[in-house]
Amino acid sequence: MKKHLKATAHANISMALVKYWGKRDETLILPQNSNLAITWDQYGSTTTVEFNSSYKRDIFTLDGQEFKEGEEYDRVIGQLNLARKLAKIKLKAKVVSQNEVETQAGLASSASGAAALAAASAKAAGLNLNSKQLSILSRQGSGSSCRSILGGFVEWQKGSKADGSDSYAVQLYDENYWPQLCMLTVVVSTKKKELKTRAGMKQTVATCPFYPCWLATVEQDLKEIKQAIKAKNFTKMGEISEHNALKLHALMLTTKPSIIYWLPETVELIHQVQNWRDEGLEAYFTIDAGPQIKILALEKNVSKIKQRLNKLQGVKKVVTLKPGKGVEYLSRHLF
Amino acid sequence: MKKHLKATAHANISMALVKYWGKRDETLILPQNSNLAITWDQYGSTTTVEFNSSYKRDIFTLDGQEFKEGEEYDRVIGQLNLARKLAKIKLKAKVVSQNEVETQAGLASSASGAAALAAASAKAAGLNLNSKQLSILSRQGSGSSCRSILGGFVEWQKGSKADGSDSYAVQLYDENYWPQLCMLTVVVSTKKKELKTRAGMKQTVATCPFYPCWLATVEQDLKEIKQAIKAKNFTKMGEISEHNALKLHALMLTTKPSIIYWLPETVELIHQVQNWRDEGLEAYFTIDAGPQIKILALEKNVSKIKQRLNKLQGVKKVVTLKPGKGVEYLSRHLF
Repeated sequence: MKKHLKATAHANISMALVKYWGKRDETLILPQNSNLAITWDQYGSTTTVEFNSSYKRDIFTLDGQEFKEGEEYDRVIGQLNLARKLAKIKLKAKVVSQNEVETQAGLASSASGAAALAAASAKAAGLNLNSKQLSILSRQGSGSSCRSILGGFVEWQKGSKADGSDSYAVQLYDENYWPQLCMLTVVVSTKKKELKTRAGMKQTVATCPFYPCWLATVEQDLKEIKQAIKAKNFTKMGEISEHNALKLHALMLTTKPSIIYWLPETVELIHQVQNWRDEGLEAYFTIDAGPQIKILALEKNVSKIKQRLNKLQGVKKVVTLKPGKGVEYLSRHLF
Repeated sequence: MKKHLKATAHANISMALVKYWGKRDETLILPQNSNLAITWDQYGSTTTVEFNSSYKRDIFTLDGQEFKEGEEYDRVIGQLNLARKLAKIKLKAKVVSQNEVETQAGLASSASGAAALAAASAKAAGLNLNSKQLSILSRQGSGSSCRSILGGFVEWQKGSKADGSDSYAVQLYDENYWPQLCMLTVVVSTKKKELKTRAGMKQTVATCPFYPCWLATVEQDLKEIKQAIKAKNFTKMGEISEHNALKLHALMLTTKPSIIYWLPETVELIHQVQNWRDEGLEAYFTIDAGPQIKILALEKNVSKIKQRLNKLQGVKKVVTLKPGKGVEYLSRHLF
């Protein structure tokens, strides 16, 4: 088993078109609703995990900064404990992680980070898990990370069992299915968000008066977007995505106290995208738990959209993504 | 009857703290939910109506501009017809109206305008209506105008009868009840809105997935805000108002197609008001069907709030209002 004590994994970010917001089980991280995402290339996380008897405690370094306590540290330990429990080992670990994307700015760094950590720690611990088992392991570290295990178009099936054994991600189509599809991530603020996703979700489930109506309609969004993706109907897929994102933010606005991730620049871009559509340039936005706008577009329109974005004051950075691969193991370690 | 053929009325704007959004009867203008507003001073509408056999058609002038057709014109004719039917007259009328507030910018000009028109046309037609009858008459021209008939704290009871005879405004407290209470209207855009309130409401009732949850919770907001007003509990009143306004905008965002009245400046001010509160300066916002922010505050904090507002780039104009009177008849006519 010794040869497996060190492993490195890379995972891409997962951005949902039909969103995940709210858990039915806080410990196992079981979602209130099934949801659908695309795993995107370029932006991701790389993590090396080494279990070694020489470590007296778990060590965690993210983007060059060591965490010795706090929420981030606790989540890493929690994920390591899951792998240790499965592999029946008690060794402490060193974890070094790098994000290719801004951390905690609504760019899904927690999804790619937790997926890479789950994969690296499982492999380092000598486990040989299939993608379903790895998805379940990863889910318990950070819910949406279970989708990052797989490439392309991914559904996270909420499942119904209390132990979470049927709540995992399944690939609908791989990353080569729809090569014309692009997502432009538009960064308008690099400030870390004040309220983290996990706390926000919990607050919504507890206090939001619209949450029952979200649950009553989100499965229909999911069904319709799956049909749209199957038919490669970009218009339909875009409309459902935009509406679902607005529903998500409507939930957050009406949570008590309100969760308002939008910035002035976010609203400016919302209006811009809708105006472009009125002018015949087809694009749809989605927004996650942060201020950044992500624009869904077909490849033929990307350069036009970029030109328009570059003229706007509030736009700090634009990166164009394409559907990307699932988790991969790397032979080159970070330490 | 001749002496009554000309009359002039003034009505103030009505700004809701628990909002009205959606009709259960489009013709009689019966609301889906009871709602609560304050009639505010300073901003209002003055309207002179004259019925005269010399007019060959109804003439309508608003803020110096004559309307000969279109939605505004049709609404005025509709209101005149209601008065003519009640008074059993067939004379054509000349209507001259002036708004003290920007028209169609989310500053409730349609409420004060329709209330002044209803009162002036009823009096000019020789009718002698009490405030309940006048409220019902006004409601049929523009729903929320029924609240502008009365001063101070006003509830528009939705009623349950199909003929609308029990759907009218009642005064809870007059304009002198809570003299410390102020509302700062903050104009961030003077552009006329593209989608008018009436069309937006209809679209929400037809397509918004959260509308059932709005209806299921809005009467509770109403009950609680009435208790807060009774106790002059500003904090509670403010919290309910802000939450209810966010619910309204969440409904609009998730209507198909989405109705997004917020501008970048709107979001900037939302964050500002919430930040001020965190710093101990108590203020709450409400937003109607437009981009403008209205800030509820106690008189002692108004100057501090104004200072902060005047430092913000997006703020075009700030006017501080106090609870105002209901409809009044003026002896000086506009023509």
